Amino acid sequence: MRAAYEQAMLGLSVGGLPIGSVMAIDGEIVAKGHNQRIQRGSSILHAEMDCLEKAGRLTSRDYQRAVLYSTLSPCDMCSGAILLYKIPTVIVGENRNFQGPESYVRSRGVDVQILDDPDCIAMMEDFIRRHPTLWNEDIGV
Amino acid sequence: MRAAYEQAMLGLSVGGLPIGSVMAIDGEIVAKGHNQRIQRGSSILHAEMDCLEKAGRLTSRDYQRAVLYSTLSPCDMCSGAILLYKIPTVIVGENRNFQGPESYVRSRGVDVQILDDPDCIAMMEDFIRRHPTLWNEDIGV
Repeated sequence: MRAAYEQAMLGLSVGGLPIGSVMAIDGEIVAKGHNQRIQRGSSILHAEMDCLEKAGRLTSRDYQRAVLYSTLSPCDMCSGAILLYKIPTVIVGENRNFQGPESYVRSRGVDVQILDDPDCIAMMEDFIRRHPTLWNEDIGV
Repeated sequence: MRAAYEQAMLGLSVGGLPIGSVMAIDGEIVAKGHNQRIQRGSSILHAEMDCLEKAGRLTSRDYQRAVLYSTLSPCDMCSGAILLYKIPTVIVGENRNFQGPESYVRSRGVDVQILDDPDCIAMMEDFIRRHPTLWNEDIGV
């Protein structure tokens, strides 16, 4: 989660939304990503999607041994990607500033763990207060 | 749907998976896309995602007037993107060769229409028969 938080801060440092994600397989980090809405004008590169894209084309056996970390609760799109690739474990920094469809994802067999991390909460809370329009755009509001 | 089918054939013509998508707003096509797994080594650019990405950063009011067309039933990831952006109407060429979470998407208020189009069915059926491994990779199997 530390590496995901650093990804979020990296995004923030260049004017982007501070949401970061990391994927690990067998305990080794295989990819890191962060939200690219501002940086690349992207509507689909949320942190988790950027991370999955950077991981490249993996086999189903790879995904099924993976753990995906995200500083913020995955939205419908990112949750859908987790379900598509049957990633069994998702570690979430916090779900106070935004909550995706966690119950549905759990009902499909994914172990979703919420850390309630104070640093992740503070980082997102501060960004949302300063950039409400941008934040709303990112979650389709 | 004709434009989505042409996108699929365009992908096929360069060695890609033949799945195409088009987004229209107020009856005008605003973006076209097709699966980019082979062409760009992408794990996230399914046809619908490529189309949404090409549409760029839109407002929630834009998405909420949109119709998304896809030659094949949207998978969990693409369905999640539809839910994130609250796209109200999805027109699907066929769901015989693959069926995404249509019931769930409908339960979230989206009008999902299945055309059962013979050309879309034949195109996908033929590709899956010739490239089963590639097809399985695309749907996380």
